[in-house]
Amino acid sequence: MAPPAQIFHANNVDPASAAAAVKVVSIETAAPAHSASLLDADEFRCHGHQVIDFIADYYASIGTYPVRPSVTPGFLLDKLPDHAPSRPERDAFATALRDVRDHILQGLTHWQSPRHFAHFPASSSTAGALGEALAAGINVVPFTWAASPAATELEMVVTDWLGKALHLPETLLFSGGGGGTLLGTSCEAILCALVAAREQKLAEIGSSKGIDDLVVYCSDQTHFALRKAARIAGIRRDNCREIPTRRDCMFALSPADLRAAMDADVNAGLVPLFVCATIGTTQTAAVDPVGELSAVAAARGAWVHVDAAYAGAALVCPEFRHVTDNAAEGVDSFSMNAHKWLLANTDSCALWARRPAVLVAGLGVENEYILKDAAEEGHDVVDYKDWSVTLTRRFRALKLWLVLRCHGVEGLRDHVRGHVAMAAAFEAMVRADERFEVVVPRQFSLVCFRLQPPPPPPEKLGGGEKAANELNRRLLEEVNATGSGPYMSSAKVGGIYMLRCAIGSTLTEERHVIEAWKVVQDRAADLLGKMEITYGALA
Amino acid sequence: MAPPAQIFHANNVDPASAAAAVKVVSIETAAPAHSASLLDADEFRCHGHQVIDFIADYYASIGTYPVRPSVTPGFLLDKLPDHAPSRPERDAFATALRDVRDHILQGLTHWQSPRHFAHFPASSSTAGALGEALAAGINVVPFTWAASPAATELEMVVTDWLGKALHLPETLLFSGGGGGTLLGTSCEAILCALVAAREQKLAEIGSSKGIDDLVVYCSDQTHFALRKAARIAGIRRDNCREIPTRRDCMFALSPADLRAAMDADVNAGLVPLFVCATIGTTQTAAVDPVGELSAVAAARGAWVHVDAAYAGAALVCPEFRHVTDNAAEGVDSFSMNAHKWLLANTDSCALWARRPAVLVAGLGVENEYILKDAAEEGHDVVDYKDWSVTLTRRFRALKLWLVLRCHGVEGLRDHVRGHVAMAAAFEAMVRADERFEVVVPRQFSLVCFRLQPPPPPPEKLGGGEKAANELNRRLLEEVNATGSGPYMSSAKVGGIYMLRCAIGSTLTEERHVIEAWKVVQDRAADLLGKMEITYGALA
Repeated sequence: MAPPAQIFHANNVDPASAAAAVKVVSIETAAPAHSASLLDADEFRCHGHQVIDFIADYYASIGTYPVRPSVTPGFLLDKLPDHAPSRPERDAFATALRDVRDHILQGLTHWQSPRHFAHFPASSSTAGALGEALAAGINVVPFTWAASPAATELEMVVTDWLGKALHLPETLLFSGGGGGTLLGTSCEAILCALVAAREQKLAEIGSSKGIDDLVVYCSDQTHFALRKAARIAGIRRDNCREIPTRRDCMFALSPADLRAAMDADVNAGLVPLFVCATIGTTQTAAVDPVGELSAVAAARGAWVHVDAAYAGAALVCPEFRHVTDNAAEGVDSFSMNAHKWLLANTDSCALWARRPAVLVAGLGVENEYILKDAAEEGHDVVDYKDWSVTLTRRFRALKLWLVLRCHGVEGLRDHVRGHVAMAAAFEAMVRADERFEVVVPRQFSLVCFRLQPPPPPPEKLGGGEKAANELNRRLLEEVNATGSGPYMSSAKVGGIYMLRCAIGSTLTEERHVIEAWKVVQDRAADLLGKMEITYGALA
Repeated sequence: MAPPAQIFHANNVDPASAAAAVKVVSIETAAPAHSASLLDADEFRCHGHQVIDFIADYYASIGTYPVRPSVTPGFLLDKLPDHAPSRPERDAFATALRDVRDHILQGLTHWQSPRHFAHFPASSSTAGALGEALAAGINVVPFTWAASPAATELEMVVTDWLGKALHLPETLLFSGGGGGTLLGTSCEAILCALVAAREQKLAEIGSSKGIDDLVVYCSDQTHFALRKAARIAGIRRDNCREIPTRRDCMFALSPADLRAAMDADVNAGLVPLFVCATIGTTQTAAVDPVGELSAVAAARGAWVHVDAAYAGAALVCPEFRHVTDNAAEGVDSFSMNAHKWLLANTDSCALWARRPAVLVAGLGVENEYILKDAAEEGHDVVDYKDWSVTLTRRFRALKLWLVLRCHGVEGLRDHVRGHVAMAAAFEAMVRADERFEVVVPRQFSLVCFRLQPPPPPPEKLGGGEKAANELNRRLLEEVNATGSGPYMSSAKVGGIYMLRCAIGSTLTEERHVIEAWKVVQDRAADLLGKMEITYGALA
């Protein structure tokens, strides 16, 4: 890192000389002095109002930022001093906030921009952002019921509320013998489910087989969170079956193919352990047939997890209930990210399990003495530390509770439907332009599209699909390079490269979608002109 | 859950009847309406100022709350309706905030209370709480460099800043070829290190041995995060060696015992994989001899991780450098929780690795097309998704950067020294009362103490250590039952039950510590009187 720049001030003192002067301070002088300046109610109020205004100003002006910064690796490393300040500069908080505005914001990808159409959304809301702020201020650590009873019980309540709002079956809710928890991400949720399944299976098969015999199943469209979880959980790399999908099945996992893969493994002496079905895959929002897959898995003793990270939010709308195949009763666990498309700000992943006791058996560690508490004695309480990878946890329930209180289930439906309507409008505009095609029929708020394979010539692109891929890669590059325009991402599925327009930013309005499409058309026209490509009727 | 109580209003609508009326709304009417109310700058500003005042008021009045609520399991479940409101009530945000004050706060364990001496601290600061609020508002998802360049680079900078502030060796920092990341918790950090070690070891040993042959080592004082991580990572339960510690070694892990355990395993055909050394164990803040343990482990090819979750914060003070045995150069990974005693609010766990490439090899998954980005091409950037369990991650660096900017390294030293001085004062008061003993010499800000084993009679307690344990269990119960008094926790180590006074709440001042000791003395006097126990000179 470069020498200190003025804007990131560091009044460094040589650590060695400081060390020589150290003495343990006396209790009389030390305590009041530091506690006043570290966490003083009045100072908090003053700085806090600055932060709120900062964020509000950011939301008000977010449309003026390029969604992606034009920076090169090292841009910030080069600006910052190579160690922390020894003493804070004068007016450090205000100065730091100014640096955030002038230097940090310039280097961020603005996920809250109304023109952010890449990946999946990370939707913010006033209730979500402030719920997180409130939880950070209160700062309790509800790892057991006793460590903060209201936090644990609110988590039980909001996961049941959310599950009902999403039309999940009673079997997954506390009210039906299951139960939910709030984790950080789907990666954690899948890992927790997988470890629970693995421990149960290992106990069941005894000593004749072992961990190296266990097999995990997914499709070639399943999020890599599954492969990562399998790796972490010690499943052999070659025991992770990624079953190919096809465009004519909309890239959904085929129950027949799953059955064949499982039976082949059983015949080879292996043990089917875990099936991950997805509702809304990362690349094209494909929906796996949960009911049929569950039936195949159940007959072979495998755990079924449903990863509905993005599209789970759509289940608030009754018109989307069909995507669970009306068969979620049979699944062992189900997760979705309320921080993706359900306004809960990062992070908020809800995981529900049909048999929480199996989760606790897999992830719980016998209570140490230190964690026992008189308040628990004789009561059957939920200790969420045994439901997850981590012991320390934030008070995440507060945020989700605020979101549900402030918008109600109908408010969430309006939110989802608004984005679905915008995506439908975008899809219609794509279909109306004969140079383009919608590669996969849209189901939620993601539109996967591309320029059609260009007719020959030009052979310089190699012709056919290869030419189309190269053409669309260049198109995305040009679209994203506009700065003031939309930011989209890509997918490559079944050999087809496509652009992804994922609508879901809370601030996105119809005009942003229309403008985005205009940018795509303009850039396409320009690119096709430069490359002298013409499509039939347009020639 | 009980029928809706007034205070947790839910204007429920029968979901079935709502479903019947569903239509996809038109883009014209839907978009502007919902985006205005979900995330509107002015509304955010208004509600945000309410939240800041709420938190400031909470800090100002926190001393008036009992640290632990007197509630029984189900107290909140019984108050809340069994599903989320269909439509928000009028003035929902303000109403919800009032419910937080009147009902949620009453059921929390107040970790920020100046009288919270249980577990380890979860220290808050203005900079930490507002850093979290700011990150929640900005709400970016820096899973790759491209997904938010400034967030990734700031994380690289602050982990180097923090590492230098903690006097970590250059080998663990980016500036020395290693590097750090910010995770949620030590559980994640240990799991990441363990998976990296496991994958490296499995590649090294080839097919002659497998995962079932790998052995993990710790002491009987190591946090259960290690056993949990080993379980998750698929290490056999009986391949986790918890080496007993002894009081005369201050419950530190003995290098000779580690060597013997490892050699026995090697002789039995097993493979030593991983050693977790702790700086500041959960129960008594014991310090394992990092240097000697590393030498034993290195000679046997095992990875060494240092878990300094709590006491790592003390390393900001040069006078505590000795606790790393001046030998951290040799360790493979090192983690500490800045949210415990370093003002960074939950959650903020820093993990450093000497060879980040091994971490990435263990946890990274080959980039999918969708994650690639033109901006990365030709540059060697850090993609933090490959350094952790999770893909989605919060912008945690902002909080830690604010804490370091606003207080400087000297400010953190003052903070730690203030608590250490208070703990020393508490320890001195315990020692001055001959009924009590300090069970383990204090090293940081945790004091482990107990009433001495009572002289006989009364035999009714069983005499000796057993009597002492029962007596101290009752003492803690009475201390914690005072409501307006301190909240402490317990440990049971080497058969000895002891009270733990962990000083570290940001708001704790000398008077709280003195008052806490007075409560302990008063409750002890009362208890001893009721039980007709007298100690020698006091008889």
